[in-house]
Parts: sequence; structure tokens; C-alpha cells
Amino acid sequence: MKKAIVLLSGGMDSAVTTAIAINKGFRIAALHLNYGQRTQERELQSFEKLCDYYNINDKLVVDISYLAEIGGSSLTDSKINVLDAKLDNTEIPNTYVPFRNANILAIATSWAEVIKAQAIFIGANQVDSSGYPDTRKDFFDAAQRMIDLGTKPDTNIKIETPIIELSKKEIIEYGSKLKVPFEITWSCYRNNDIACGTCDSCALRLKGFDEAGIFDPIKYETRPKY
Amino acid sequence: MKKAIVLLSGGMDSAVTTAIAINKGFRIAALHLNYGQRTQERELQSFEKLCDYYNINDKLVVDISYLAEIGGSSLTDSKINVLDAKLDNTEIPNTYVPFRNANILAIATSWAEVIKAQAIFIGANQVDSSGYPDTRKDFFDAAQRMIDLGTKPDTNIKIETPIIELSKKEIIEYGSKLKVPFEITWSCYRNNDIACGTCDSCALRLKGFDEAGIFDPIKYETRPKY
Repeated sequence: MKKAIVLLSGGMDSAVTTAIAINKGFRIAALHLNYGQRTQERELQSFEKLCDYYNINDKLVVDISYLAEIGGSSLTDSKINVLDAKLDNTEIPNTYVPFRNANILAIATSWAEVIKAQAIFIGANQVDSSGYPDTRKDFFDAAQRMIDLGTKPDTNIKIETPIIELSKKEIIEYGSKLKVPFEITWSCYRNNDIACGTCDSCALRLKGFDEAGIFDPIKYETRPKY
Repeated sequence: MKKAIVLLSGGMDSAVTTAIAINKGFRIAALHLNYGQRTQERELQSFEKLCDYYNINDKLVVDISYLAEIGGSSLTDSKINVLDAKLDNTEIPNTYVPFRNANILAIATSWAEVIKAQAIFIGANQVDSSGYPDTRKDFFDAAQRMIDLGTKPDTNIKIETPIIELSKKEIIEYGSKLKVPFEITWSCYRNNDIACGTCDSCALRLKGFDEAGIFDPIKYETRPKY
């Protein structure tokens, strides 16, 4: 059975991506990163619940809290505030964690090379996203080339980004069709108990559910219309 | 003054690379990685001595011991033996740590983006090396593209590999000219006290010094002719 690593943050997009990888017939090895982010504890909890739900036993939880030490992001530096969402903003918001996805992909590739996984699934999205530079298709194309060149000749690992060109609405519809348990996922950047409903990540999620005409089953402090 | 991050393992190549970066007028921020390798303690000691020697105060030591957890290399897995050097071997030796340099470059880029460094210097070498796939020029070209695409538009970070096309002999001659303190560097893969003289890394180093006609000032258990 072919094997894939899925980057499983515990968020909605990574949960849908897991469901897609399983649906494609892959046996899943799940990778989760603690990088000193505000909601680290809550994300890890969702990761564990999703692994239980999908019977994933091959798990790796990696500490990269050096990203918090390096700083430069409101997600990892408590002195920088997570701002309320401005979805029409063209600037990169301060929740951007410098080059985070490259760090994550490098770890995933090291692991994939050792366990002989053929694919790395990542739930990156360039449509309804916050405009982070490391979530775009051309970034992953460059990463693919780096993987092809930087691993052993007999290693063959393909980056899979199945939802990169979908809107949030489409991701939710797709996930809903695959019976993704949205109630155990976590997207909020701010809180560990009840989602705030107003950060970028909550806003994109609520807007997507709204457009899909599906009720988001998690609890929010407030559910604005976006 | 322009700023550069140097990947400073404490080995000879990274020490020469540091000297080159200083010589080019950069203010140095030094990055060192502990990845659970056998000689972690000794390498860190050399890193600190080199930082003292070059008056580098901007230091970051990052723990990526997840690479040891992932395993797949004799450098990080005590159950796999570090073999004696076979310099004419065309196979990748078991000291290869899967995709290590990509992990290191990702960390360096995250840090560079936050401290606004314009360059990342890495002492990779594709000539007298062990044939690792992640030390070749085309790998760094791909990494450069990933950095250009995956960081903020106003970020401009250049990977510098000044010794990639030099032989070990030439690296030693260059370092000697720049008065690199070879006596405080560490290259051995096996030992933390006296270098073994027979692992791949010792063999390449000894051969280089021999060819340069310079005496390697560190102590060895044995000094074979290669």
C-alpha cells in the first residue's frame, strides 16, 4: 500500500486534505508541528482527535519552537497583537510566520525519505488565504525541485497540494462530501477554548461555511457575517 | 553594514566560509544546529570558540533533534555504525542525514527574514565531499528559487556558497591565507575528544591538508595517508 505523509495541523484544510489522501488510497503518516504558536495546545488536541478518527497510528509530533525564538510573527510573539481580519487587505498580515512552510516541508521530506513515503500532502491554499508567500503554487513547484535534487537518487517524493486552487467554500463542500469531522478541527489563531470568530483564520472559515450554506459546528465567541 | 547569516557547524569548511564572509565586509550572525549527532557536544564547543575568535555576538543555536528521532543516518542513530572512509566510493555513505541541509536552510531563511540579513553563507562543497545530494550547486539554485518565492516581496536573501567548487586542498589554502584557526575546528564524525582519522570526514580533511602541504594542527588517533 502506498504511503503518504500528511501535514496535519488540526485545522480544517489539513483535515480535508487528510480525507482526500485516504480517499486516494494512501496509508497515512501524520506530521504535526509545535512551533510555539498561541494555540499550540488546542491544535495538538485536534491533531490527536483527527488521528483517532482516521485510525492513524504513524504519527510524528515535532517541536520547532525555534520559530518562536526567531519571532517576527503575531502567532509566536505575544508582544505582537493578532489583529482582526481584513479580508480585502492586500498586505501580508502579521500572522505570517517567516518561511514556516519551508521548515515544515523540509521536516516532512526528511521523514518521507526515511519511511519511504511517496507523497507529502499539504493543505495549502492560495485562493481564500491570507496572502502568505509560502502557500502559493509556484512556491511548491520550487520546493518539489529542491526535493528532487536534494534527496537520494532512488527517493521519489511528490508534493501534493489538492486544495491549493479551491475556494474555502469548495474546500468545505468537498470535506462535507468526504464526511470530514469539522467539529474536531481548530482554525482560530487567538484562542485555545472558544474560537474568536474575528481573526483572519476564523473569518475565512466562517465566510466559507456561510457561502457553502453549511453550519460550522464549532463554538465561536461571535459569528460575524463576512 | 550589510548582514549575513553563516551556518557555522564548527567544522573546517564552515570556519573558512565565516572568514570569507567577514572578508567580504559582512557583519555575521552565526547559526548552529544541534541535531542529535554523535559529536554534537564537540561541534558546539568549536562553534563557541569560533564565535569568540571572530567576535560574533549575534548567535542562534537551534535544537533540531527531530532529525535524530527521524533517523536513517549513522550520524544520528547509534545502532548504525560510522564506517571507515572509502573515498573512491560512488555510493552515498550512511552518514548522510536525509535532507538535512534543506532543514538548515529553512531555519536560516526564517531567521534572515526577521533580522533582515541579505545573505546566507553555507560552506557546502561538491568536490571533495561524500556525495551527499544536498550539497550540490543545483540543489542550492533550487533553494534560492524557493527562498525568492516563499518570503515577503521586500525580502531579498541570497544564498552564498563560496567554497562549493573548491577542492579540500584549495579550501585549506584559502583558509590558511585568511588565518582561519584550524586548531579550534572539528570535523570528525565519530569522536568528541580526539579525532579518529579514519571516518569520511577525517579522511577528506587529512587528505586536503596533506595535498596543501600544511600540517593539520588538531590531534588524531591515527593519521593515515589517503
